[in-house]
Amino acid sequence: MEKLGMLYQGKAKKLYETDNPDVLWVEYTDQATAGNGAKKENIAGKAHLNNQITSVVFNLLARRGIPSHFIRRISDTEQLNRHMTMFPLEIVMRNKAAGSFAERYGVEEGTALKQPVLEFFYKSDALNDPFINREDILALDLASAQDLDIIASKTREINQALTAIFKAIEVELVDFKIEMGRSSQGVILLADEITPDTCRLWSTRNRDGGITHLDKDIFRRDLGSIIPAYQTILDGLTRLDRAEETGQD
Amino acid sequence: MEKLGMLYQGKAKKLYETDNPDVLWVEYTDQATAGNGAKKENIAGKAHLNNQITSVVFNLLARRGIPSHFIRRISDTEQLNRHMTMFPLEIVMRNKAAGSFAERYGVEEGTALKQPVLEFFYKSDALNDPFINREDILALDLASAQDLDIIASKTREINQALTAIFKAIEVELVDFKIEMGRSSQGVILLADEITPDTCRLWSTRNRDGGITHLDKDIFRRDLGSIIPAYQTILDGLTRLDRAEETGQD
Ligand SMILES: Nc1ncnc2c1ncn2[C@@H]1O[C@H](COP(=O)(O)OP(=O)(O)O)[C@@H](O)[C@H]1O
Ligand SMILES: Nc1ncnc2c1ncn2[C@@H]1O[C@H](COP(=O)(O)OP(=O)(O)O)[C@@H](O)[C@H]1O
Ligand SMILES: [Mg+2]
Ligand SMILES: [Mg+2]
Repeated sequence: MEKLGMLYQGKAKKLYETDNPDVLWVEYTDQATAGNGAKKENIAGKAHLNNQITSVVFNLLARRGIPSHFIRRISDTEQLNRHMTMFPLEIVMRNKAAGSFAERYGVEEGTALKQPVLEFFYKSDALNDPFINREDILALDLASAQDLDIIASKTREINQALTAIFKAIEVELVDFKIEMGRSSQGVILLADEITPDTCRLWSTRNRDGGITHLDKDIFRRDLGSIIPAYQTILDGLTRLDRAEETGQD
Repeated sequence: MEKLGMLYQGKAKKLYETDNPDVLWVEYTDQATAGNGAKKENIAGKAHLNNQITSVVFNLLARRGIPSHFIRRISDTEQLNRHMTMFPLEIVMRNKAAGSFAERYGVEEGTALKQPVLEFFYKSDALNDPFINREDILALDLASAQDLDIIASKTREINQALTAIFKAIEVELVDFKIEMGRSSQGVILLADEITPDTCRLWSTRNRDGGITHLDKDIFRRDLGSIIPAYQTILDGLTRLDRAEETGQD
């Protein structure tokens, strides 16, 4: 596999072409951003951690019958992904009120929801990733009704699997953002990354009533360094992955 | 019918109890607001016009088999309405991109949509009436799935009827906001008002390419006085109503 020209430099990753048009060479960077890039910082070690975390998560999901764009990790900060045609959507699923949901609707963070909710945001830096509903997606032709049905049901499956995975490492999955695309064979697949940058993860260990954030809220809210928290997530997931591999519990 | 204590003073109307708990005495006021009250002005004649316009619209809809909370107009600025338990939702239907839709998604005002779209906003002055999706409405328990299905199909019916009504007076219905409630008999009904305050109405007469606004955008965007525009709408609707009453065309 040969790394060719850079296709896109995003806020957290760089995408490169390879000699196979179906394969993307993805390099994770140390850049952390919040508020659509309004807050920006370089955090040594982030690339390394997120590249490893998302690789383990995609493996754990694959073992549970949930495929993704992930092919394999090729270095501390790089991995190969299937090259997809992305939907311009951020797909958000929430198990509890937090973040923009809590703010938008004036609900206290941590409030239980009657049921997990799916939200879409129109992925556009220029427009500040606006909240969008299903009808507006159809009217703007960003995805078809059938695509949205598939995306919704896959996201619910992913939520169930991820919730169980994180629960096994004493972490509550409060919400997460994923992206999906269509492969060259026409299949809709989970893509992008699943990391503490894109999930809200609260420790369920020795809860004294407060929230122990193990995710990007530490950066967004200036609660300290993200590195130990991300390392905790990586360690937990790695242990779970090894245990499953060797069949022990 | 006796007018009793004031129940609620809104941005455009005052609601009073009557000696019948099922009947509301509604007084239209001259107050105009935009941006959730950020811009506020008294415009002499507005109460009169809107009270008459919404009365005629509710009559025209009733004639087309679409019931509402409207009982009857009792003065220039007052009407009786059925007292409902309101859903805390602004129900918006759009036939073309305009206003907050055009802004949110970076689409030029007047752009055709693949299909009319339904949007919900959570009616809360404190939260600035945030955009909300169906799943969030269910999770926050603002309405049930069955309620939302009824609201959606009634809104589509109302859109079809209103589009035809305005077309008959050479006006294009670009979008509108309605509210619905549940009557004491448990029936979901159209309520609140349908006026140039709550609809985007563009003249279809001698179009030179530009937009001739006949609605509150004249106030929102400082394009002059709303009074002649609202009067044009009232005159057109009154003529249509009379023509239908007498069976002439
Ligand atoms: N499998 C894939 N194929 C093509 N593009 C992808 C794939 N997975 C993720 N992407 C896109 O690559 C970019 C990832 O880089 P990132 O730094 O997260 O960018 P952004 O700042 O746009 O979020 C995103 O635009 C994402 O949509
Ligand atoms: N039939 C009805 N029964 C009870 N409340 C109603 C009815 N129709 C409208 N309302 C409510 O009355 C108020 C109308 O007054 P308005 O000045 O438009 O208020 P607002 O500033 O809240 O929009 C709104 O809160 C609306 O939800
Ligand atoms: Mg990204
Ligand atoms: Mg109102």
